[in-house]
Amino acid sequence: MSQGTRIIRVLCADSKGIISSISGLLSDYGGNITDLEQHSEQDTGLFAMRLVVEGLRYTPKFRKDFLSLNLKDFKYWINDPDQKLKMAVLVTRESGCLYELLIKRQSGDLNCEIPLIISNHKYCAHVSRDFGIPFLHLPVTSPENKKYQEAHIQDALTQHGIDLVVLARYMQILTPYLTDQWTGRMINIHHSFLPAFKGGRPYHQAWQRGVKCIGATAHYVTTDLDEGPIIHQAVQSVSHRHSVKGFIQAGADIERSVLYMAVRAHIEHRIILTGNRTIVFY
Amino acid sequence: MSQGTRIIRVLCADSKGIISSISGLLSDYGGNITDLEQHSEQDTGLFAMRLVVEGLRYTPKFRKDFLSLNLKDFKYWINDPDQKLKMAVLVTRESGCLYELLIKRQSGDLNCEIPLIISNHKYCAHVSRDFGIPFLHLPVTSPENKKYQEAHIQDALTQHGIDLVVLARYMQILTPYLTDQWTGRMINIHHSFLPAFKGGRPYHQAWQRGVKCIGATAHYVTTDLDEGPIIHQAVQSVSHRHSVKGFIQAGADIERSVLYMAVRAHIEHRIILTGNRTIVFY
Amino acid sequence: MSQGTRIIRVLCADSKGIISSISGLLSDYGGNITDLEQHSEQDTGLFAMRLVVEGLRYTPKFRKDFLSLNLKDFKYWINDPDQKLKMAVLVTRESGCLYELLIKRQSGDLNCEIPLIISNHKYCAHVSRDFGIPFLHLPVTSPENKKYQEAHIQDALTQHGIDLVVLARYMQILTPYLTDQWTGRMINIHHSFLPAFKGGRPYHQAWQRGVKCIGATAHYVTTDLDEGPIIHQAVQSVSHRHSVKGFIQAGADIERSVLYMAVRAHIEHRIILTGNRTIVFY
Amino acid sequence: MSQGTRIIRVLCADSKGIISSISGLLSDYGGNITDLEQHSEQDTGLFAMRLVVEGLRYTPKFRKDFLSLNLKDFKYWINDPDQKLKMAVLVTRESGCLYELLIKRQSGDLNCEIPLIISNHKYCAHVSRDFGIPFLHLPVTSPENKKYQEAHIQDALTQHGIDLVVLARYMQILTPYLTDQWTGRMINIHHSFLPAFKGGRPYHQAWQRGVKCIGATAHYVTTDLDEGPIIHQAVQSVSHRHSVKGFIQAGADIERSVLYMAVRAHIEHRIILTGNRTIVFY
Repeated sequence: MSQGTRIIRVLCADSKGIISSISGLLSDYGGNITDLEQHSEQDTGLFAMRLVVEGLRYTPKFRKDFLSLNLKDFKYWINDPDQKLKMAVLVTRESGCLYELLIKRQSGDLNCEIPLIISNHKYCAHVSRDFGIPFLHLPVTSPENKKYQEAHIQDALTQHGIDLVVLARYMQILTPYLTDQWTGRMINIHHSFLPAFKGGRPYHQAWQRGVKCIGATAHYVTTDLDEGPIIHQAVQSVSHRHSVKGFIQAGADIERSVLYMAVRAHIEHRIILTGNRTIVFY
Repeated sequence: MSQGTRIIRVLCADSKGIISSISGLLSDYGGNITDLEQHSEQDTGLFAMRLVVEGLRYTPKFRKDFLSLNLKDFKYWINDPDQKLKMAVLVTRESGCLYELLIKRQSGDLNCEIPLIISNHKYCAHVSRDFGIPFLHLPVTSPENKKYQEAHIQDALTQHGIDLVVLARYMQILTPYLTDQWTGRMINIHHSFLPAFKGGRPYHQAWQRGVKCIGATAHYVTTDLDEGPIIHQAVQSVSHRHSVKGFIQAGADIERSVLYMAVRAHIEHRIILTGNRTIVFY
Repeated sequence: MSQGTRIIRVLCADSKGIISSISGLLSDYGGNITDLEQHSEQDTGLFAMRLVVEGLRYTPKFRKDFLSLNLKDFKYWINDPDQKLKMAVLVTRESGCLYELLIKRQSGDLNCEIPLIISNHKYCAHVSRDFGIPFLHLPVTSPENKKYQEAHIQDALTQHGIDLVVLARYMQILTPYLTDQWTGRMINIHHSFLPAFKGGRPYHQAWQRGVKCIGATAHYVTTDLDEGPIIHQAVQSVSHRHSVKGFIQAGADIERSVLYMAVRAHIEHRIILTGNRTIVFY
Repeated sequence: MSQGTRIIRVLCADSKGIISSISGLLSDYGGNITDLEQHSEQDTGLFAMRLVVEGLRYTPKFRKDFLSLNLKDFKYWINDPDQKLKMAVLVTRESGCLYELLIKRQSGDLNCEIPLIISNHKYCAHVSRDFGIPFLHLPVTSPENKKYQEAHIQDALTQHGIDLVVLARYMQILTPYLTDQWTGRMINIHHSFLPAFKGGRPYHQAWQRGVKCIGATAHYVTTDLDEGPIIHQAVQSVSHRHSVKGFIQAGADIERSVLYMAVRAHIEHRIILTGNRTIVFY
C-alpha cells in the first residue's frame, strides 16, 4: 500500500512560488502537511525545506509529477518514517558513546535498527553481547592489513544493508576507500576546544593553556578527517580543578550527548547537506 | 504604495490543504515566501504558521481574498516589518532591564521605537535623559491615587500610539483596568525558581532551600499576575558561594536577558498566543 | 596500616583560628593538605570546610585530638577515599537513570560499588543481569503489603552493608519508616518546572502552560517527599515543537545527568548537609 | 589604621604544612579567615591559594614575617578590598562591552573606578559623556603616528593611576611597548569558534562551515595577540537561521558577558596567573 506519511526534504535555487507548487501537488495527491520548516538565503540564493506529509498517495505518477516540478538545481529526498534506518556503530576502546546509542534505541528515543557493531579491538564486545547485537572484530595489525580490514568493513556494511555508519570513538583514520562510499552517511564525533589545538595529545595542550570550555563536534566524515560538515556542537565548562583526566571525562560526556543529537537528527531526516555545511531543522 | 514585505501569522483548526491555499493565494498576488515555519498539533487539532513574504501586492482585494479563505477558527495577523512598533517601558528602581532594551535598540538589535518611559519613582530618570527619551514620573502615593495613576498611564500610552508595554521591573501590581486593555501586548519579567516559592522575599526563601538554579520568566500580563502565557525562560547556576545578594545579582542578569529575548520575539512578530500558552517561531 | 589519604568535612560555628587549629593538628600528624575549600557565612555564623589530606597518621590519638578541638556546634566526617561506598539503586520502570549509574561506575567515573538493585517491578531486571548485579524484585501488591515490602528493603540494605540509597525513578512513595533511617543517605531525582505544578500529570500541566524550560532536581529524601535538601539542579530548553512526550524525553535526559552529578558529589564526600540545604564543594 | 580585611593570593611549590604556617601566622596577627580556596597539582607540584582574612593587623612586622615564610618559588599578592582598582577602558566602534562595564559599575556589581575611556575613534564619546567619564580621543592616523599614540595612551594611564586596562573591542593591535608594561593587568576579549578560523573575516568563515556554536574568550594580553592566558570562556548556540549578521550579534552578546566575568574576577582578586594559564577561584 503506497499511502502514508512521508518526510520530504528539498534543496534548490530560490525562486517564486516553490512552496505553492509543492504544497499544491501534495494536496492533489491527498497529502496533509503536518510539519513544515523552510529556509531561504538571500546571499546564496538557496531554498531549503523539510516537510512531513500524511495521507499521501505515494504512487509512481506522484513521483513523476514531483520530479517534473523541475526546480533549478533541484535535489530532494523522500523518506518513509516507518522504515527504520539501519545503523552500524564502529568503536575502539571507549564504550560511552556506544552505550548511549544502544540505550536510546532501546528506550525508543532513537528510531532505528542497530544490526552491527564493528571494532578493531575487543574492549566493547561485552556491550554488544548484553544488547544482543553481532560484534565484528576486525583488528588492524599492520599498515598493509588495513586495506583488507576496510574491505571487510565495507562487505559487512553492505551485507547488513546499513544506511548510516557512526564512528563512536573509532580510533582509526579511514582511507578515502571507505569515506568516499559513505559521503553524507557517516558521522564522526571529536573533541573541540577554543582555540583548537593541532598535533598530538590535545587535552594535554588544552590543559596547559588553561581553557575554560571543553567542546565536542559531530560531523559528516569526508576525506579530510575532522573537517567535514558540522552537524551539532556543544561545550561544557571546566576549571583549574579539572586535571587532564577531568578534562577527558568532561569531554567524553559532552561527546556522548553531541553524537546522540547528531545521529538523531540524521535518523529523523532533519539534515540537509549543502556544500560543506548542514541545515538542521529541529 | 502597497507592495512589499509582510509577516503573516495564522492560527486556525488544522485541515487539509491550508498551506497550499495560503501559498497559492500569496503567489497569485506576486508574493515570494522567504521564510516559513509551521506547526500542527494532533492532540489539540491546532494549526499555526508564520511566514515572511516579499513582493506581495497588499491590496484591499488581497485582504478580502485572504479573509475569504474562511478557515475554521481563523485568526491572522499581517504586519509590515518596516513599520516599527512603539514600545513604552515601565520601571521602578532597577535600571538593568531598561538599559538593556535601550542599548539593544540603539545598536539596531531591537527594531522598534521607544518614545516613552514611565515610572512610579525617579530613580531611572537619568537613564531616560541620557538616551533622550521622555520620562513620565507618575507616583503612586496612596491606594486611592493608584486609580488615577493608571488612568494617566493609559492616557500617555494612547497619546504616544504605543503598541507594546514592557514592565521592566515595574514594582506595582496593575489592576484589570490596565491589564485588560493590553492583553497580548504587555510583557512582564519575573524571577523563577525550582521549586517556586510563594509569599514574600522569594530570594531569601530560595537561599534557605539552597537552590542551585536561579531563573527568569518573561510572560504576557494577564489579570492573574505572574501567571500569564510564558514567552521565554532561562536559568543560571548558583551555589552556596552566592549570598542572598549574589542570588539577586544572578537573578537580575538572567531577567535582563530573558526579557530582551521575549521583547525581541514580540517585535519581530514571532509569537502566536493560543489560550494560556505561546508558540514562538525563532 | 592507618596512614593514608583522608577526606575531612567540618561544620561548626564560625570563630577565629579554626583553619589554623585544624591545619596545625593535621601537620602534627604528618598530613599534607592537597585540596581545601572553605566557606563562612556572616548571616548564619556558619563555618564549613572540606579538605583532602595525604600521609596522615590516622591513629586513635589523632582522632582523640581532633575531637578535642572542641569547636562550637562541631560536626565532622572523616572518610578514606579508598573505601568505596556501597550504593543500592531502587527503580521501577524507566532504566535511563539506572544505566547511567552503572555505566559511570563501569568507566570509573563513579568510584563506588553497586551490590544491589531493588525494584517493585521486573522491567529493569535485564539491566541488572547484563551488569551482573543482584536484582531484588519486591512488588507492592496492596497498601497493607507495602509495610512488609519496606521491611524487606531495609533488611536487604542492611545485609549488603549499603551506605547510600539512590531512588532512580522509583515510583513508590516511601514511608517515614525508611526515610527516617536514611536521612542524608538517600537521594531522589524528580522533574522541576518554572513555575512548579502541583497535582497529577505535571508534564501535561507544563505543556498546557507552554513552559520553555524543563528541569530536574536531585535532593536528599526527607519525610516530606520532594522537599528535601537540594543537591543539584539543571534545566534544558524546550519549545512548542516538543509534544508532551517530547517534554518527558527531555526531562528524562536532564534527570539522568542531574542524578549522576548529585550521586557523584555524595560519593566523593563533597556535600555538607546543614538544616534544609546543602553546601556542595566541587 | 592598618587593621582590616585583606585578600591574599599565594603561589608556590607544594610542600607540607603550607596552610598550617600561613593560617597560624594570620591567626597570630588577629586575622580570621572567612573564605579560603586552595588548589594543589600533583603533576606540576604547584600550590595556589586565595583567602579572605578579616581583622588582620597588617603591620610592617606582619609583612616581614609573611615574607619570611620563605616558601619555595614564593609569590604572593595582598590586597585591600576597600581599595578600588582603577580601570581604563579602550574602545573603537562598538559600545556593547563598554556599556556593560559602566552599567555594572553603576549598579555596584563591579567594585572599581573607571576614570578614563580611550578610543582611536569618536563613536563612543556619547557613552562616556552620559556616564560623566573623561574620553580621550587618540586616533591612529598613520603607521608612524601609532608609536606616538601608544606613548600618549601610556602617559594617560600613568597620570590616572590606572591598575587595569580593558580592551573592550579595541580594534588596534598593540605593540610590545604597551603590552610588556601591562603584563597580567590588561584584559582583551575576542570571538572564539569550534574549530578556530585563521585569517580575515572569521565570522564569514564560521558561517561557511555552518558552525553551531559561537564563543568568546577573555584573556590577559601578551605580545602574542589572542594567545595570552585564558581567564573566561563561554559559547552560545547558533543555527542556519542565523545569517552572518546574526552570528556577529550572537558573538557580541557572548563577548560582553564573558568580558564582564573576566574583569570582575580580576577586580575581586580571584585570578592567579601561572605560566600561560590562569587559576580562577570563583
